[in-house]
Amino acid sequence: MSPRIIFIGGGGAGLTAAFHLARKSHDMQITVFSRDPVVAYSHCGMPFVLDKIIPGFDRLVIYGPEAFKDLGLDVRTSTAIKEIDIDDKAVITETGERIEYDRLVIATGPSPFIPPVPGTSLDGVCTLANLEDGKKLSERMNAVKYAVIIGGGPIGLETAPAFLDAGAKVAIIERLPQLMPSALDPDMATLVQTHLEKRGAKIITGRGVESINGKTQVESVTCGGETMPADLVLLSAGVRPNTALARRSGIDLGATGGIIVDEYFRVQRNGKVLDDVLAAGDCVEVTGLITGKPGIFAVGSVANRQAGYVADYLLGRKRPYPPVLCPTINVIGGLHVGSVGLNTHACEAAGIKPVTFNARGATRARYYPGRTSVEIKLLSDGDRLIGGQIVGGENVHSKVNVLALAIGKGMTPADLAEAETCYAPPVTPMIDPLTYAAEMLALKNARLKKADYGH
Amino acid sequence: MSPRIIFIGGGGAGLTAAFHLARKSHDMQITVFSRDPVVAYSHCGMPFVLDKIIPGFDRLVIYGPEAFKDLGLDVRTSTAIKEIDIDDKAVITETGERIEYDRLVIATGPSPFIPPVPGTSLDGVCTLANLEDGKKLSERMNAVKYAVIIGGGPIGLETAPAFLDAGAKVAIIERLPQLMPSALDPDMATLVQTHLEKRGAKIITGRGVESINGKTQVESVTCGGETMPADLVLLSAGVRPNTALARRSGIDLGATGGIIVDEYFRVQRNGKVLDDVLAAGDCVEVTGLITGKPGIFAVGSVANRQAGYVADYLLGRKRPYPPVLCPTINVIGGLHVGSVGLNTHACEAAGIKPVTFNARGATRARYYPGRTSVEIKLLSDGDRLIGGQIVGGENVHSKVNVLALAIGKGMTPADLAEAETCYAPPVTPMIDPLTYAAEMLALKNARLKKADYGH
Repeated sequence: MSPRIIFIGGGGAGLTAAFHLARKSHDMQITVFSRDPVVAYSHCGMPFVLDKIIPGFDRLVIYGPEAFKDLGLDVRTSTAIKEIDIDDKAVITETGERIEYDRLVIATGPSPFIPPVPGTSLDGVCTLANLEDGKKLSERMNAVKYAVIIGGGPIGLETAPAFLDAGAKVAIIERLPQLMPSALDPDMATLVQTHLEKRGAKIITGRGVESINGKTQVESVTCGGETMPADLVLLSAGVRPNTALARRSGIDLGATGGIIVDEYFRVQRNGKVLDDVLAAGDCVEVTGLITGKPGIFAVGSVANRQAGYVADYLLGRKRPYPPVLCPTINVIGGLHVGSVGLNTHACEAAGIKPVTFNARGATRARYYPGRTSVEIKLLSDGDRLIGGQIVGGENVHSKVNVLALAIGKGMTPADLAEAETCYAPPVTPMIDPLTYAAEMLALKNARLKKADYGH
Repeated sequence: MSPRIIFIGGGGAGLTAAFHLARKSHDMQITVFSRDPVVAYSHCGMPFVLDKIIPGFDRLVIYGPEAFKDLGLDVRTSTAIKEIDIDDKAVITETGERIEYDRLVIATGPSPFIPPVPGTSLDGVCTLANLEDGKKLSERMNAVKYAVIIGGGPIGLETAPAFLDAGAKVAIIERLPQLMPSALDPDMATLVQTHLEKRGAKIITGRGVESINGKTQVESVTCGGETMPADLVLLSAGVRPNTALARRSGIDLGATGGIIVDEYFRVQRNGKVLDDVLAAGDCVEVTGLITGKPGIFAVGSVANRQAGYVADYLLGRKRPYPPVLCPTINVIGGLHVGSVGLNTHACEAAGIKPVTFNARGATRARYYPGRTSVEIKLLSDGDRLIGGQIVGGENVHSKVNVLALAIGKGMTPADLAEAETCYAPPVTPMIDPLTYAAEMLALKNARLKKADYGH
């Protein structure tokens, strides 16, 4: 009998791994369960549909049911799994159906974090966790006069311009003292804040929401003693690993809240690795490259990459998954915001005292139309590069990728500064600002080392 | 007395080094001689002024005489050097003035290659070697009905759209069987050719020009037996190291035609290194990274980088100049054309049999407006990456820079494929096409190695 593989979750890790598997093997019986009615869509594209840059949510759907059929994939949408019977190797659906597996992959993704304040279930309080959320938001979009976004992370900020462009007043509330605290240092976050303020958003940092108010429909939000009008609230206060099912099944979770997996994405029960149960994507913790410690890296590109390793394991081609750097890029109303490796907050948490350098440059020759400024902050541990943040009007992702390669291969700032770069006036200044930043950080590192030897 | 430093040449190597020197040291007497009336302008920007993307040639001038004065630089424009008296350490101008130096830097740049055919001195036959050339071309631009570009290299191709946009008929003649033979393989060059043909240019490859015809003003060009009308001819058949002065002074030239320099850019006379005479930029030959052999790398970014090493040598901070990879990017009527390392032609010349992989991808998520296709060709020596060519509508330079870093650090395709990349729909698809190309080339290398072991 052909092996029966079950995936729980139809997102970036689960469905992608199922696709890989179906393409590379023809003797497997592959079933994917998803709670959502639609799978195989681009989650990251939703803010741009809301902002009418992309003409409709249907455009985000990458594969429909025909594609699954063609691949021999059994994709069961709107079907939640209630229980995993690990000893007898079966899953049980919410309606009581019991399906046996030879191999199981848990890819239950993230759950939006709902802040513990009154009013989160009022009408008009939304999240952007799936396509249905997006469609609901979209329907309300034109009627919104006062939008309050709770959470200053990337999803909320990418969505803010949609409200602004629809003519709404927008307030963004972030509990921590700066926007995008997971990705950026305070000085770099200020650039994002200024950009959104210039577009008309009101930004409140360092104060948490106290209550969301209204009878059945949201009417206002109270924060730091101030009550502001709201006819729509977007909860985007981050995500948590969605591990309820795994926990109920006795699978070990780590201190981060994510499912513990080994380098082949095998889960553990009571500390014992299970060969036939894997987990991947936003619900697991994996090792960070710089810290060597477990972390949650809930971005699509990381999940997508993990899917390849999961598929290879199931195909009997074991490849150990390397530690993660997690380069990211977000486009916030035309401002490109990138980060990779550790920021200063993450350094503090890891007990690393970073040496940093900030550089400002341009994205094209100074006489070339369309050029924008770009600000780069590089971090080293005094020797090697360990992180970087880049904010600018274009071509930020490319610098993030260069940095990811440099950091991933253990390079020093001097290594990066020595690397040759190409030049043409329409696309870059003669000296790439990243080269300049690396050169200056190398000098700073050298100066500090010299000073150390002096003691 | 403060040391007297003389630079011959006010281009990307000479003037840039003089600027570095003036900024970092205040006890030097620095004189720069240039034949040209204007220095410190962006040569690479000229095609885009001709195409009216940049509103005038004055925009290309980066520093004027005031900047030189502020820095204490004595810049003598329109002043040619006739002779170098190496034994007595002096230069002699064309008007007979003799100026002594303590240290000399020869940065005489390139000379346009003038094909040995009749008619190259007719009125209407132009080159694009300096700002004056550009201004002259610009004045004629609107009156041109038939433009013939001789040479299918980057400068000619970048300028072709200016003629097309001005309403001229354009023919491009390349003696070799493909466009951009120094940068591209034939398959990649076809993409450039198709792009220009779609815009209306006529491309003739594999046939040299026989004659440029006319009485005083150019009237036609004969090529492959065919005579085509021409009221303007742009000679852009490449450049050669401008070494006449160095040769006359007894300085050693290499087999490439460039001035021989050591890793500190010191020249030689009769095989003996001269400590006080340096040469840099388009007039010298330097070591190629992959081949380990001398080559001419006549692009602005290479000259600019060399300037830093020259300045450091003159400041007493000797840094050996590393072998060169020479990543390049050209923007040809909106098409971005990049290359780095060796192409197949260069591999053949170096006796390397490359393993190649071509991949096609997109520059943004497939539903995101403005996305363009991008074609990537990667070359390995069966093990390490040794070259790459990228042609697409945007974001090509960034991939060139990633590749330059990977090749420069001796990485294999697998190393590059393993590197994490960031993702956001407006700027990149989920899987970067460069990652995919590297992954496929890694597999191909592995397959070929296995097949080898099988024998």
